[in-house]
Amino acid sequence: MERQNIFTILARDGHARRGRLSTAHGTVETPVFMPVGTVGSVKAVCPADLKDVGAQIILGNTYHLYLRPGDELVARRGGLHRFMRWDGPILTDSGGFQVFSLNELRRLGEEGVEFRSHLDGSRHLFTPEKVVSIQRNLGSDVMMVLDECPPGGSDRDYVARSLGLTTRWARRCREAYPAGAGEQHLFGIVQGGIYEDLREESLAQLAGIGFEGYALGGLSVGEKKADMYRILAHMGPRLPENAPRYLMGVGTPLDIVTGIENGIDMFDCVLPTRNARNGTLYTSQGKVNIKRAEFREDDSPLDPACSCYTCRTFSRAYLRHLYVAKEILSFRLNTIHNLRYFLDLTARARTAIEAGTMAALKAEIAAAYPEDGA
Amino acid sequence: MERQNIFTILARDGHARRGRLSTAHGTVETPVFMPVGTVGSVKAVCPADLKDVGAQIILGNTYHLYLRPGDELVARRGGLHRFMRWDGPILTDSGGFQVFSLNELRRLGEEGVEFRSHLDGSRHLFTPEKVVSIQRNLGSDVMMVLDECPPGGSDRDYVARSLGLTTRWARRCREAYPAGAGEQHLFGIVQGGIYEDLREESLAQLAGIGFEGYALGGLSVGEKKADMYRILAHMGPRLPENAPRYLMGVGTPLDIVTGIENGIDMFDCVLPTRNARNGTLYTSQGKVNIKRAEFREDDSPLDPACSCYTCRTFSRAYLRHLYVAKEILSFRLNTIHNLRYFLDLTARARTAIEAGTMAALKAEIAAAYPEDGA
Repeated sequence: MERQNIFTILARDGHARRGRLSTAHGTVETPVFMPVGTVGSVKAVCPADLKDVGAQIILGNTYHLYLRPGDELVARRGGLHRFMRWDGPILTDSGGFQVFSLNELRRLGEEGVEFRSHLDGSRHLFTPEKVVSIQRNLGSDVMMVLDECPPGGSDRDYVARSLGLTTRWARRCREAYPAGAGEQHLFGIVQGGIYEDLREESLAQLAGIGFEGYALGGLSVGEKKADMYRILAHMGPRLPENAPRYLMGVGTPLDIVTGIENGIDMFDCVLPTRNARNGTLYTSQGKVNIKRAEFREDDSPLDPACSCYTCRTFSRAYLRHLYVAKEILSFRLNTIHNLRYFLDLTARARTAIEAGTMAALKAEIAAAYPEDGA
Repeated sequence: MERQNIFTILARDGHARRGRLSTAHGTVETPVFMPVGTVGSVKAVCPADLKDVGAQIILGNTYHLYLRPGDELVARRGGLHRFMRWDGPILTDSGGFQVFSLNELRRLGEEGVEFRSHLDGSRHLFTPEKVVSIQRNLGSDVMMVLDECPPGGSDRDYVARSLGLTTRWARRCREAYPAGAGEQHLFGIVQGGIYEDLREESLAQLAGIGFEGYALGGLSVGEKKADMYRILAHMGPRLPENAPRYLMGVGTPLDIVTGIENGIDMFDCVLPTRNARNGTLYTSQGKVNIKRAEFREDDSPLDPACSCYTCRTFSRAYLRHLYVAKEILSFRLNTIHNLRYFLDLTARARTAIEAGTMAALKAEIAAAYPEDGA
C-alpha cells in the first residue's frame, strides 16, 4: 500500500521533470537542491538565512545527530524541526554513508553495521530497524533506508553481493515503517556501482518492495566522472515515474543540471557550504577563489548576477579581506552566496523545464564550469 | 578653536549624564556601549545584526586595520564605513594599546613607537602624526590620540614620566589635526595610572590643549578592581563637563554602570564578543556558561528578559548543542545575545538617568553579577 499523490509532475522537458513533493512540513518545488545541515545546523547560517537564500528543504545527518546531541534528546525537544527552529521539510540520511566512511572503525554483517564513534570511540550498532527508529525520533519528513555504499573502485562481484544486502536492509526498513505508518516518507536507495545491469537489478528489487521515493546512491564516491554520467543517463529515466528521484551527495553545478536532464528531482551536496568556508565561490562566471590578490582592490560585487545579501551588500575587496583575516563573518557571507547560487540554479532549472529550455541552461553551466565536465 | 555643540547633555542623575553626541555619520545617544570591530568586522556578526541588536557606534582597531588590509587601501575603498558597509558612526583607537601589548616586539622613543607586526614581523613606526594620518584614511568619526599605556603594576615614577610623553604626543596629534580641520573628532586620553594627582595632572595638560572629547585610558590593565573604581570615582566627574567622556576598554556590566554613575558617556570592550565565542553569556540572571550539562534538555530561552534574535528563536538546549558541537552558528548567536545585553544595559541606563533611577539599576546589576565587584 503506497501512499498516493505525494509527488506531482507539473511539466517536462525531455527526461527533465518539474514537480512538487508534499511533506508534513509543506510542499517542495522540484528540481530542488537541499543544503546539508549535518549536526542540526547548516554550517555558518541560521534558519532565517536559509529562508532568505530560498532553501525549501534541508538535510540532516542521522549518524551525527544520533551521536550528538542524540536522537532521543531531539525527540524530547519535539523533533529536529523544533530543536533547530527550521519549520520547512527535512530529509535525513540513514547514517550508512558516514558509517562506511569510517573504514577501519566499522564492521559489516547481515544484522547491520557495527562502528565506533569518531567522537569518543564508543561502540554502536546501526541496523535497518535502528536507523528508522532514529529518523522517527528526529521526525524528518523524508527518511532514507540503511544501505551499503561500496567505494568507487569496488569490483563487480563485491557490488553484486552488496546490493543484495542493501535490498534486504531496505525491506527491513520498510517493514519497520510500512507505507502509511506515519507522515514521514521512506525512500529506497538504488546501488549497483557503475554497472548498468546491477543498477537495474537493485532498482527492480526496491521497486518490488515499494517506497515513497527512490534515490541513486553510490555515485560521486571515487568513480570516474564519465562513469557517473553514464549511470545517471541510464538509470535516471528508469527510476519509477511517479515517485520523487533523489541523486545522493551530488554535486557540482554541472552534475546537478546533468542530473536534472536525466530526470532527477532532488539533490544534496556539501560543496556549496564546504567550499564557502574554503573561499571557493560559485558565480555566473564560474568558480572564484576569493583570496586571489586580484580582488584586493575590487569594489564590484562577487557576482553581479546574484541578488543574495552578500552580493547586494559587500565588495569582493571586503570579502577577500574577511577571508584573509580569517574573520568568522567570512564563513557566513560566503555560505549565503554559495547556497543562493545552488538554489538559484535549481530554481532556474524549474523555469527552464516549464519553458522547454533545459538544454540552453545546461550549455550555459557547462560553459561557466568547463573544469567540471572532465 | 574648539568645535561647538558636538555633545549635548539632556538629563542628569547624580554624576550620571544622559547625552547626545553628534558625528558625521549621525548622532549617538549616551551613555553608549560600542561593540569592537577589530579588523573591519565585529567578530561573527554582520552590519544588519549590529543594527538589530541596537548598536549605534562601533569601534575599529587602527593597529589591525593598518597592518591588514592597510589604511591606504581602505581609503581607496572610500573609507572604513563604506568598506565594511556600516553607515553609523565609527570610533578608532590610536593603535597604541595594541602596540604596547606586543611587549618585546616594540621600542618606545620620543618620536613614537617602533614595532614589529604580529602577522609577518615587518618593522613599523607609529608616531602621533602617523596614527592621525591612518585614522584620517580610515575616516572614523572619532579618532584617538597616540598614548603610552603603562601596565597596571607600573611604579609611580614611571607613570609620571609616561604621562608627560602622552601629553607631548597628544599635542602633536592635535597639531596634525587642529580642531575644525575636518568632520572627524579627536579625543585626548588621560593617563596617570592609579594615582589621583597624576591623573589630574594628565587631565590638566590635555584640557589645556583642547580636544573634542576625553578618555580615561590605562584602566582595567591589570590593576586591582578597587583601584580602578577609586580612579573612576575621582576622575569621572572631573573630566570636562561639556565634552563626551570615554572609558577605554572597560568592562563588565558592573564596571559599565559604575562608570556611568561616575559620569562616563562611552564604553567599549571585547568582553561581550570574546566571551560569546567562549560560551560565556550575559543574562538578567548573571553570567551563564552555555556548555553546562544542566542545559542539555532546557527548552527555555537563554534569557527570558531578552528580546534578541537568539533569545526569541532558540532554546538553551540548542545553544548548548551548537557550542558543544563547535558549530560556527554558535559564535554568531552567542555574539548577538551578548551584544544585545550590553546595548540594552546602556539603553536602560539612559532611561534610568532620565527617571533618576540609576542607583536602582546599579543595585540590580551588582546583585546579578556579584563576582564582578571584587
